[in-house]
Amino acid sequence: MNKINSVTIVGGTHGNEYTGIYLLRKWQQSPQLIERSSFSTETIFANTNAFRDNRRYLDCDLNRQFRVPDLTNTALSNYEESRAKAINAQIGPKGEAKTDFIIDLHNTTSNMGPSLILLQSDTFNLQMAAYVKQHMPEAIIVMEDQIPLEEQAYLCSVAKQGIIVEVGPQPQSVLRQDIMEWMETLTQHVLDFVDAYNAGTDLDLPESVSMYYYTETLKLPMNEKGERIGMVHKNVQDKDFKALNPGDPIFTLFTGEELKWEGNYVAYPHFINEAAYYDNNLAMSLAKRVEYKVPQR
Amino acid sequence: MNKINSVTIVGGTHGNEYTGIYLLRKWQQSPQLIERSSFSTETIFANTNAFRDNRRYLDCDLNRQFRVPDLTNTALSNYEESRAKAINAQIGPKGEAKTDFIIDLHNTTSNMGPSLILLQSDTFNLQMAAYVKQHMPEAIIVMEDQIPLEEQAYLCSVAKQGIIVEVGPQPQSVLRQDIMEWMETLTQHVLDFVDAYNAGTDLDLPESVSMYYYTETLKLPMNEKGERIGMVHKNVQDKDFKALNPGDPIFTLFTGEELKWEGNYVAYPHFINEAAYYDNNLAMSLAKRVEYKVPQR
Repeated sequence: MNKINSVTIVGGTHGNEYTGIYLLRKWQQSPQLIERSSFSTETIFANTNAFRDNRRYLDCDLNRQFRVPDLTNTALSNYEESRAKAINAQIGPKGEAKTDFIIDLHNTTSNMGPSLILLQSDTFNLQMAAYVKQHMPEAIIVMEDQIPLEEQAYLCSVAKQGIIVEVGPQPQSVLRQDIMEWMETLTQHVLDFVDAYNAGTDLDLPESVSMYYYTETLKLPMNEKGERIGMVHKNVQDKDFKALNPGDPIFTLFTGEELKWEGNYVAYPHFINEAAYYDNNLAMSLAKRVEYKVPQR
Repeated sequence: MNKINSVTIVGGTHGNEYTGIYLLRKWQQSPQLIERSSFSTETIFANTNAFRDNRRYLDCDLNRQFRVPDLTNTALSNYEESRAKAINAQIGPKGEAKTDFIIDLHNTTSNMGPSLILLQSDTFNLQMAAYVKQHMPEAIIVMEDQIPLEEQAYLCSVAKQGIIVEVGPQPQSVLRQDIMEWMETLTQHVLDFVDAYNAGTDLDLPESVSMYYYTETLKLPMNEKGERIGMVHKNVQDKDFKALNPGDPIFTLFTGEELKWEGNYVAYPHFINEAAYYDNNLAMSLAKRVEYKVPQR
């Protein structure tokens, strides 16, 4: 993979995830904080109108509008579909993007801590994971590389390299100092890594790095009419990235009945009870814990 | 004070505070849970359209529309202003209400635990506070009786007696099992108290009860243009009802500078960093801790 010449940091892809939005403001006033000698850095406030209205989005989720067929479909013209095309024109076009690497800043209401969601398991991403864990042991690395990046719908898929910085727990439309510090620290380590990666020097990375490999998404318990009839079990609430063993309680029905995790593997739930996923009745994502070998230079 | 003959339990006054809404559903299926022999109980789902749109409100905060001049002002006709008039017609009219006691169920994103907000310090409310603390020691009692109840704008001010059950922390548009259990338990104790109060028997209450007496509301740090320039200090975040001493850090500016609590009393913050209060840039409410003597029968 070639050198990273330009980096785009995106905040406010969802208008009620405040941390990235306020970090962008800070960095616009002190741009030296995100500058490095080996690449240029720009920032984009992705969904300004959703922020103005204090909502995740106006018409549809902006972070699901970046598939090439949608970007080139002029019939898709609501606010977020239009913003996606404008952003794609600014830093893309996807497939031949002007920017080499996109860092998209997100908050979650789930207790996910400072998480880095990787979408490719190439040398660049695996070394980044190892570098970040080395410098910030409390960081969590999630790997979601089932779909090639260029087929993903995420904003960060516009460039050849893209990641999501996902930090919580933080309620929508709130700014917490601890969450802001985590997001800023994690982003700084990523920028430092890119600078070191560009330099081509030995990064002195550990041989392996532990990650959470996304496996599946579970829905909330529902009846035949599609109404919710239960909620996340209180033993699971806030236990993002803690082991859930087959047979452990996972949901509580409003009748009081408990449902168990019936999978055949030790699952590591995350995005547990994320507010923004209720519209699709998603209860949590699951992962397996996997040790990845880190390619050395 | 006379016997309480009818009780109204209200949920969904704010459309994205889910716990009360789902408890109402449960109680509609099992009405015996909220029935008592000495009074009748009805439920009201106050802001159905805000829930449908997954928002706190459509046009304005429903829980600020119950002043008599507003209820009688026909020019005030947006959705919540109209809902207020409809609810007032159903269970009021305020001043001569058909219902004797309103329990309004709310969630907060703040770490307030199971809180009971009282708006009057008469025998009924002070005995209720003592009864609830006796049966649920983890409950928090907040007293806000500066304004006579009939001059309040809250929904629960329609009746001669009204309280707010306020339970958190819960992000907007999320359902947590622990929060639901707290709200249900607290509401059950209130109903049991009313039944015992009606019976006129000796309640065997403690001589005094500790409460948090509301004193003032603090705003987030802002510049001359009204833009937020700081946030709640991380030492204060989640520390609802913990003592804040004069000189303690209370805000962190985005520059990193810390601001101190400059009041002359030991304050007990609550509603710390509540998401719904950002529209008015409110950072937290403060209280003093006060021991109230409990009137015995």
